[in-house]
This record gives sequence, C-alpha cells and structure tokens, in this order.
Amino acid sequence: MRFGRIAHPEGFSFVVIDGEDDLVAKEIKDTPYTEPEYTGREWPLADVRLLAPTLPSKVVAIGRNYADHVAEVFKESAEHLPPTLFLKPPTAVIGPDAAIKIPDFATKVEFEGELAVVVGRVAKNVKAADWKSVVRGFTIVNDVSSRDLQFADGQWARAKGIDTFCPLGPWIETDIDSFDLDNLSIKAHLTHDGERATKQDSNSNQMIMKMGEIIEFITASITLLPGDVICTGSPAGTEAMQPGDTIEVEIEGLGILRNPIERA
Amino acid sequence: MRFGRIAHPEGFSFVVIDGEDDLVAKEIKDTPYTEPEYTGREWPLADVRLLAPTLPSKVVAIGRNYADHVAEVFKESAEHLPPTLFLKPPTAVIGPDAAIKIPDFATKVEFEGELAVVVGRVAKNVKAADWKSVVRGFTIVNDVSSRDLQFADGQWARAKGIDTFCPLGPWIETDIDSFDLDNLSIKAHLTHDGERATKQDSNSNQMIMKMGEIIEFITASITLLPGDVICTGSPAGTEAMQPGDTIEVEIEGLGILRNPIERA
Repeated sequence: MRFGRIAHPEGFSFVVIDGEDDLVAKEIKDTPYTEPEYTGREWPLADVRLLAPTLPSKVVAIGRNYADHVAEVFKESAEHLPPTLFLKPPTAVIGPDAAIKIPDFATKVEFEGELAVVVGRVAKNVKAADWKSVVRGFTIVNDVSSRDLQFADGQWARAKGIDTFCPLGPWIETDIDSFDLDNLSIKAHLTHDGERATKQDSNSNQMIMKMGEIIEFITASITLLPGDVICTGSPAGTEAMQPGDTIEVEIEGLGILRNPIERA
Repeated sequence: MRFGRIAHPEGFSFVVIDGEDDLVAKEIKDTPYTEPEYTGREWPLADVRLLAPTLPSKVVAIGRNYADHVAEVFKESAEHLPPTLFLKPPTAVIGPDAAIKIPDFATKVEFEGELAVVVGRVAKNVKAADWKSVVRGFTIVNDVSSRDLQFADGQWARAKGIDTFCPLGPWIETDIDSFDLDNLSIKAHLTHDGERATKQDSNSNQMIMKMGEIIEFITASITLLPGDVICTGSPAGTEAMQPGDTIEVEIEGLGILRNPIERA
C-alpha cells in the first residue's frame, strides 16, 4: 500500500494512493501509521500536489554506509571510517517537485540518493532480527549536502541541515517484503543545461551496515517515533548541482523523487 | 516572567511561575510563546513536578564555543577549531530531577552546563543585532556527552543524542535584559559518593561566538520554530559522571538544573 500526503483545493490530507496508471489519492482519517480509514474524498493524483509523505519529529541518518561512496568521498577504505550517525532537522524536509534552494555560502552542493525508512511504531532497543516490526514502509530521500561546509565544519549538521536539503517522497510503500535489500537498484539522474545524465547507478548490495543492524544501532541510543525517517546511506556518484538543474533519485519499487535546484 | 511545564495531579500544564520564596505555578491556556492567559488553576510549586519547560521540534547546539573548554577537550587553540553546529534529537530532552540514564556502551559520560536559548518566533535570516526579537527567554541545558563515543564516531549526534542526554530547565526566564551576557556565571556541581564539588566555574565571557552571531549563523541555514532550543556551548571543567552521582548546573538568574545519574 502507498501512503502519501497531498495539497488539494481544500487543504492538506494524508492519502492512500491507488491504481496503476491513473493514480487516485484517497483521503484517510488519521495518519499513515495506523490502518487506513477512508473519508470518501478522493482526487486524481494528477490534479493534486504530492508533499513529503511524513512529518518526521527527527531524521536520523547513517553516513559512510556505502562502500563505493566512502571510497569516493572520504578517500579511505570503509574499515578505517566506519558508518556514523548524524541528524538532519525536520525543517529541511521538502516534498517532490519542491525546489532545493542553495544559499550563497553553501558551495559544492551535492545530491545523495538514498533509501529511506519511515518508522511506524515507537522503537527502542530493537534487535536486528525484529527490524520489520517497527517499520511502516520505505520512501526515497535526497540527503543534499554542501560538501565544502561538511568538511570545513567537521560536524555535518549544517552542511546537510539547510532548509530544503531533505527532499522526501514520492510516497511511503508499505510492502517492504517486495524489496530485495540485497539487490536494490538506486540511481540519480542529473539534468544540467537540458541534458539528463545518470550519475548514481549503484545497488543496496554496497551497504556496509544492513537494515537490521542500522535499526538496532540507532534504537540502542535513540527512541524512534512514528513518522521518523532513517536515511540509510548514499552510494557513489554524488556530484555538485547548479541552480537550474533538476535532480531525480530513482529507486526500484518506489519510483522517482524529482526536485529542481534554485538559488536561495 | 518565568514559564514552566509541570506534571500535576490532573495532568500536564504550561504555567507561569510566580513568587519569590513560596513559588506558585499558575496554569496558562496556551504555550509560553504568546502572552499568557490564565485559566485560574494554580498549585504551590512544591506540590507539583517541573518538566522540561519546552517541547522543542529541534535542539541546535554550538560546539567548541568556549575558549577554556576547547583548550581542555580538543587540545588545540580555538582558532584552529572554530565553533561548529550540531543537533540533539528532541527524544533526548528530560526535565529537572529526571534521571540521566547511561547505557553500557556509552563510556566517559560527561556533563556540559550551558546557557540555553528558547526560541519565541519563526526565525530565518535573523541579523545579529536583531537576535532578541526571536528569543522568548533563557533556560539551562546540560549537553550530556559520551566523550568516548564522540571521538570514536567523529559525528557527535549519537554521543550527545542518547535518550535522557538533554536535561532542560528549570524554567524559561523571559527577562533577557536582566542577564549580562558578557559576565554571566556558569557552574556545575557534581555530587559523587556524597561529596559535592564545583567542577565547572566559568563565565560567558569565554564565549567565542556571541549570542547575536550564534543566532545569525544558525538562521542563515536553518529555520528555528517557537519552542526550539539553542545550546550556546559549554565552558571548561567537564568531567565524567557515574551512576549514583547527581549533577547540578547553576546559572546566574536561572537557578539550578539538577539531575541524578543512573545506569540505563
């Protein structure tokens, strides 16, 4: 089942998105974290605007979690720089087609296409084997990062936490068993000067810390709440974006998260 | 004016705390971020329990912001390691007298007594000179940190983000002009084996980035929301705490934030 959040002529709603070609957004009474109860209102998806599918109280991210990306950005083998935890602020979250806005001082702003977990239950001290019990579904995140600020600051919170630097969407897919986490295609396509080129073309088989380990690692320290988002790490191929570009992150089974780039 | 949040026999309330010796908690209708409207219910403060005075959507912190602490922890002069921004998750927040709970894997868990800002308005691109316009008041924060995890992880989010690692309180003092930010005493007293010793005894005159600069720096990147908390940095004197200890952070004009230490 696909849960989304939309802006429609009368306001904002959480919806279930149904259909194959002509998608329909069916309004639900509560949130995506419980079984849906329908209000009866619905709209063709083409007539409404998708927003970020969840309003997280926090976005917890695992950095240096793809062997190919560690080799590319950190110039050291993954064994010397193990995966690490960082946070992105909820104010950075935007939805599909919203603009990533780059302030002047944030240089070398790169995309990082990632598989994102949306938490479904209060989660503390979850064992790796039980990870599915606390997950509501998957979506796509673009962990937008000013590579220059990231290394100048040392701490990554500002480089990755600027307003609009956390595009999320297009929706939450709850059928997590339909994803092969040992072989999931993750791509990012950058359109620059009208030319669309595939820059990230990797696979979840590059993940160093696997899904169960990630959730055990985080929840040993930090309680996750329904709606919270986990960014599971970016593969190789990240590259700087310019105002006027469009970035698309594509993950098998989730579709495409597309955002234009603007000057703030 | 002092705003607090309390647990009382009938539930939880935001309150104004009045009086000099026999303090009274007077319930307000809304939140501390607007002018208070009283419900008429009130309790002697001694009969209720103070909670964290705000429920922040995020806790933004400035690290390496006291010259004396930088010299102590980072072993380099502050010029080589400028102040940096990091985030603590809202799930780490606890109130006065609640226990800081240390999990086994978090070793060398130190207190860091800090002056905290509570944001009163939506704040983006605030100029240093205008900082007071977005601040509701000050409170005390203890930026509890596992020094071992902090340096092992590189990123500080886990070391400083563990559940209970963000004690906040005892209340929000809105009379910010009553604080001399160029000469404000900040202390921490650790009680170990029944012996109370003053470990931090510093002054806001050690701050590298001043209040206006901090708020301009953060809001150039990140929108702050009412209730959000800024931790302005810890002075020297931090030290490891053990289960059974009690830590008290004392700031002139705010009183004491006291928390016991327990094993998680």
